[in-house]
Amino acid sequence: MSMIENLLPRIELELQRQVSRLDVPRTRGFHEMLAYHMGWTGEGAGAEARGKRIRPLLVLLSTASCGADWANALPAAAAVELVHNFSLVHDDIQDNSPKRRGRLTVWKKWGMPHAINVGDALFVISNQAILDLAKNYPAQVVIRAADCLHNTCLDLTRGQFLDMSYENRTDLVIEDYWPMIEGKTAALLSACTQIGAILGNADEAVIDQYRIFGRDLGLAFQVQDDILGIWGNELQTGKSAASDLVEGKKSLPVLYGLGQKGKFAQRWASSAIQPGEVAEVAQMLVDEGAYEFAQRESKRLTDRALLALTNADPQGDAGRELKDLANKLLSRES
Amino acid sequence: MSMIENLLPRIELELQRQVSRLDVPRTRGFHEMLAYHMGWTGEGAGAEARGKRIRPLLVLLSTASCGADWANALPAAAAVELVHNFSLVHDDIQDNSPKRRGRLTVWKKWGMPHAINVGDALFVISNQAILDLAKNYPAQVVIRAADCLHNTCLDLTRGQFLDMSYENRTDLVIEDYWPMIEGKTAALLSACTQIGAILGNADEAVIDQYRIFGRDLGLAFQVQDDILGIWGNELQTGKSAASDLVEGKKSLPVLYGLGQKGKFAQRWASSAIQPGEVAEVAQMLVDEGAYEFAQRESKRLTDRALLALTNADPQGDAGRELKDLANKLLSRES
Repeated sequence: MSMIENLLPRIELELQRQVSRLDVPRTRGFHEMLAYHMGWTGEGAGAEARGKRIRPLLVLLSTASCGADWANALPAAAAVELVHNFSLVHDDIQDNSPKRRGRLTVWKKWGMPHAINVGDALFVISNQAILDLAKNYPAQVVIRAADCLHNTCLDLTRGQFLDMSYENRTDLVIEDYWPMIEGKTAALLSACTQIGAILGNADEAVIDQYRIFGRDLGLAFQVQDDILGIWGNELQTGKSAASDLVEGKKSLPVLYGLGQKGKFAQRWASSAIQPGEVAEVAQMLVDEGAYEFAQRESKRLTDRALLALTNADPQGDAGRELKDLANKLLSRES
Repeated sequence: MSMIENLLPRIELELQRQVSRLDVPRTRGFHEMLAYHMGWTGEGAGAEARGKRIRPLLVLLSTASCGADWANALPAAAAVELVHNFSLVHDDIQDNSPKRRGRLTVWKKWGMPHAINVGDALFVISNQAILDLAKNYPAQVVIRAADCLHNTCLDLTRGQFLDMSYENRTDLVIEDYWPMIEGKTAALLSACTQIGAILGNADEAVIDQYRIFGRDLGLAFQVQDDILGIWGNELQTGKSAASDLVEGKKSLPVLYGLGQKGKFAQRWASSAIQPGEVAEVAQMLVDEGAYEFAQRESKRLTDRALLALTNADPQGDAGRELKDLANKLLSRES
């Protein structure tokens, strides 16, 4: 049995314990909304609805690969997953998304006002979870971990602001892309590995390599997600083919394509891409070098992430599984 | 010059310092949204738009009246005000309110998706602010203050859930009222005085009296707000007369009236109250004893709040001004 198989049920238990703060008679209906979103109850509950819990795994594997007991870090693992889920619930409202992981989103099921409140509660509980570390660590260490998490959350709101403010802009360039995904994707993964190493009592230089590993892992992951969003097929991604083009998402290949000021840029500027012309528009991007560019960037970031991980020198079974997880995330086809 | 006149500009400066985390070139437009909501910039900026900053005043006066230096508690004062404002921004979306303090609400000005993110950012910054106490206090004390703030925030989301879930219910009784306003109003005021006393290094028994004072102050304040919402006039409240009846708000007098199962309950059940019949319906409530009941409850809670404050035995100028502030809040006509 792999270590990850051991960790997953413990992560789930810790998450349930944290969220159970709302599981009292008067707010049982509220607790149900959070439990539904977390994939524990309601239609379609189960492993598929819960997602892969990659963020808490990164925390625990980072702690363990520094040679420390991962069980002490469980509240931090729960905290990062709760932050992730708070942002998903609010994202789904902001993007008007009716479904997530094949199920109705919280706002679609209970309305927008309740969904805002569900996101807020998940966020509050993440704050409570990170302070629960005080049972296992000195107060100074807890404050450092909480500080790291809060800084990351501000990055998340920054990334979200940039993403939304880009929607109606036509003058964007590649340089506008990185700060957006630094906030939206990389900041939280970076916090996972950094907090993991802090709780692993690693040296400062090592903590910094874990931090860089998480960040570059996040950046590489997002660039791959962008590539799949245009050239992946439905079987791989679970989304309808090339939905990113139809949705007008300002992904890396699109920003590169716009910079070429060729046929793609002309087509993009004239009107929204229709589902029927996706293959044709995707080919324009290939012809103008966007696919090659994105693949090159993905490779560059992947190499950087793996170099940082090598520098961090993770130990033991946890170290091996952390490397495996990184490789899996970085070479994924879905 | 009163102490409060000294504190207010320092509170404002600390708030601006905290929010300035977003004041960098790429997110300047984001910072502007927060600054607008806080009453610092945009149309109608100024003292009126900022509100009374009662919560940070309660923190600082509590700390000072325990004989400690209030300046060290400034980050906590900013934190509670940021929590309050985060909840206002999200409330305004949830209630579909176009105006607050005579100005357009954030969602009305920048749209709902940005407004959710503005609320989230205010919340994140409140978390960062409370940890800033680490510059002035031992780590254990900081964690205790942060823990208190987070518990309060969970109470806020609970109160919000109850408030929203009551909207379509016809079976509510007085007992349903208290947990709602405990969460929505009393929890945060209670956190202000409790955190203030913790930072004032008070004894546990004293901290507890400060906590009770804040909570009962909040409860009494809310009951008075409910009375003004039905029997206050527009000049006093700044709202259109008796808007609470027209809005169908489940306030204390209304819940009492429903329990009488008389003319008021009949009228309430049949259809929404129209502006033209407000005086008549308000009189029904008086006739059935709701006004007297609410006044009695207000008196009971006010007495309880002032007793706790006496027990806390606040010292010096700060103690006198804390009592003055409480008396002003509790006998207000607007």
